[in-house]
Amino acid sequence: MYNFEYQNPVKIIFGKGEIKKVGTNIPSGAKILLTYGGGSIFKNGVYEQVKAAIKGFEVVEFGGIEPNPHYETLMKAVEVVKNENITFLLSVGGGSVLDGTKFIAAAACFQNGDPWLILTKRAPVVDAIPIGAVITLPATGSEMNGNSVVTRIETTEKLSFASQKVMPVFSVLDPEVIFSLPEKQVANGVVDAFVHVIEQYLTFPVNSPIQDRFSESILKTLVEEGPKVLADRNNYEAAANFMWSATMALNGLIGVGVPQDWATHMIGHELTAYHGIDHARTLAIVLPGVMNIKRTLKKDKILQLGERVWGIIDGTDDERIDQTIQKTVDFFESVGLPTRLPDYDVPTETIDTICTRFEKRGYKIGEKADIGPAEIRTILESRL
Amino acid sequence: MYNFEYQNPVKIIFGKGEIKKVGTNIPSGAKILLTYGGGSIFKNGVYEQVKAAIKGFEVVEFGGIEPNPHYETLMKAVEVVKNENITFLLSVGGGSVLDGTKFIAAAACFQNGDPWLILTKRAPVVDAIPIGAVITLPATGSEMNGNSVVTRIETTEKLSFASQKVMPVFSVLDPEVIFSLPEKQVANGVVDAFVHVIEQYLTFPVNSPIQDRFSESILKTLVEEGPKVLADRNNYEAAANFMWSATMALNGLIGVGVPQDWATHMIGHELTAYHGIDHARTLAIVLPGVMNIKRTLKKDKILQLGERVWGIIDGTDDERIDQTIQKTVDFFESVGLPTRLPDYDVPTETIDTICTRFEKRGYKIGEKADIGPAEIRTILESRL
Repeated sequence: MYNFEYQNPVKIIFGKGEIKKVGTNIPSGAKILLTYGGGSIFKNGVYEQVKAAIKGFEVVEFGGIEPNPHYETLMKAVEVVKNENITFLLSVGGGSVLDGTKFIAAAACFQNGDPWLILTKRAPVVDAIPIGAVITLPATGSEMNGNSVVTRIETTEKLSFASQKVMPVFSVLDPEVIFSLPEKQVANGVVDAFVHVIEQYLTFPVNSPIQDRFSESILKTLVEEGPKVLADRNNYEAAANFMWSATMALNGLIGVGVPQDWATHMIGHELTAYHGIDHARTLAIVLPGVMNIKRTLKKDKILQLGERVWGIIDGTDDERIDQTIQKTVDFFESVGLPTRLPDYDVPTETIDTICTRFEKRGYKIGEKADIGPAEIRTILESRL
Repeated sequence: MYNFEYQNPVKIIFGKGEIKKVGTNIPSGAKILLTYGGGSIFKNGVYEQVKAAIKGFEVVEFGGIEPNPHYETLMKAVEVVKNENITFLLSVGGGSVLDGTKFIAAAACFQNGDPWLILTKRAPVVDAIPIGAVITLPATGSEMNGNSVVTRIETTEKLSFASQKVMPVFSVLDPEVIFSLPEKQVANGVVDAFVHVIEQYLTFPVNSPIQDRFSESILKTLVEEGPKVLADRNNYEAAANFMWSATMALNGLIGVGVPQDWATHMIGHELTAYHGIDHARTLAIVLPGVMNIKRTLKKDKILQLGERVWGIIDGTDDERIDQTIQKTVDFFESVGLPTRLPDYDVPTETIDTICTRFEKRGYKIGEKADIGPAEIRTILESRL
């Protein structure tokens, strides 16, 4: 295990009916900007619950934050924050709304030029407006970390930043929000959380049995509970277990002291940037290609994944690796996510475009920083 | 899974050579009280490392905090804190030194009479002096929680309190501290951490697969890594995995949303209070008795423990429960902890004394609050 530092002060408020606690967790006298997305919170009763919970606070609302939140939209919210002297941001929505709200929080306090630098140059986030979150869609883990991914439409770029300063002060996780989710969003959430674990787990061994087993715990639970949620959206227990899995998948804990990959995400982001494909679906496309091209580097962990999560114990190493990749593909497809580029009408030329972009960026990705444009081409071509 | 709240802001600084970071994590200008125990830190090089790391700070030292820290000793430290205008407590030692330091932190700020009330009446801890910790003995998990257990010699009482206010601001975990530990302390630490997990896991099922599997992850890792550390005290990787297991065992995470027991601890504390038996050893004595008397209530989880941790799958339920208890006893004894009262020369009369004490207290213990004096008698008599 490598040396590491870990700190995660987010207060999690978990369970049915807990949205009522939002108000008591916001500093009295705060002026709140309530951020939300496309308006599902008006249909599932969450908006009413939140409004009742923050009765007495001065509240400004800012809706319309998109999936893969747009820099352009978020900068409008930054103006509102400044003009209205907002002191607290309350994100009510899924990971995109919360990611967007994190950028708003950082950009509103940014003193060193264009806030875009936070994403392009990883300019340090020295201060941020405090954030509270009510999560309406388990998937990204954004509720218990300081990560944010933002898309700039003007330049077709999807970029990320991370800062302790934008970790939510609190996050309310009421699994009942899942009852009204469409199948597609549940399936995306299951795969998103699954691949978050994989990015921190499927690298090379560094003798970290706690991190490994915690990762496998989350993977196995997603494999078991995901289909239950899809089969019966009113299964509260399955919803709760799915929701907690998604949070644990990306709150930093399973990633301490171990190498991390994130190549699947980096490549997937480009597919979202160019074709607007749902984030989780890009992961379902890319991951099998990454596993295949890195079958030697990742051999020990792929075999471990196969054995401990999929129960694969027979065959040569290569056969077991093939089976493990296939089982992973089968799982994604079983919950309804196609895993090949043509399933999403992505033309072959996109592969050239993405490789050129990585060429220009000049750095390689993956846990050994050895995945460059040539490897990315191989990965994507294997998904045709 | 039950509803829950979880927040753990402790900053963990983990790995070899990390003690040097202590100073940069203490507010500049702080006046430090460095607390320690019997003086092992002078022999293992930790004292020198800490002193070098806090060079430039004004430091007062307070040593001699006992295993099972004494209220009487800690109140002397409270006087020092007040007289010297201490603003930061730096605990350098094992769980007892840190537990004691937590009480000092709370007692020094206590405004509502005798600080003893924090332990006897659970008087609220409104404020506390900030604490940093350098851990020299993995066992209690005190480095990442707000729990503290204190013993009052005058009244032969061992009592606990818990408060978010006494969570360390940071804890440095350098596994190299294990290299110089005597076998007995390592073995105690392994069993202490093991039983911490059991108290949060071995109850009745509430459909919490993440918590269950995380618990089993820690148990399996302790069973694997504990003997490696005992066999070769210089095995850094095993030491690191053991140390991280002990922290994860009691930082609250595996206990969210599930019933908890703690009867073994409550009964064990009495054996320490009356006979000075090491905490972990009292747990090794009591746990098999609790498992046996609660074999019906705990049936599902004992069978799950047997299967997933000990690999027990054959036999009737009762046979598997017997095997699971026996495997647990065997593990404790294999690392060198005897599990019966006569092994520690505890006279039968102590059972009467303990039962009388619980009789006077008037409350019952365990996850169903159904273990009273009669059940405690059965448990202890089964350990003769």
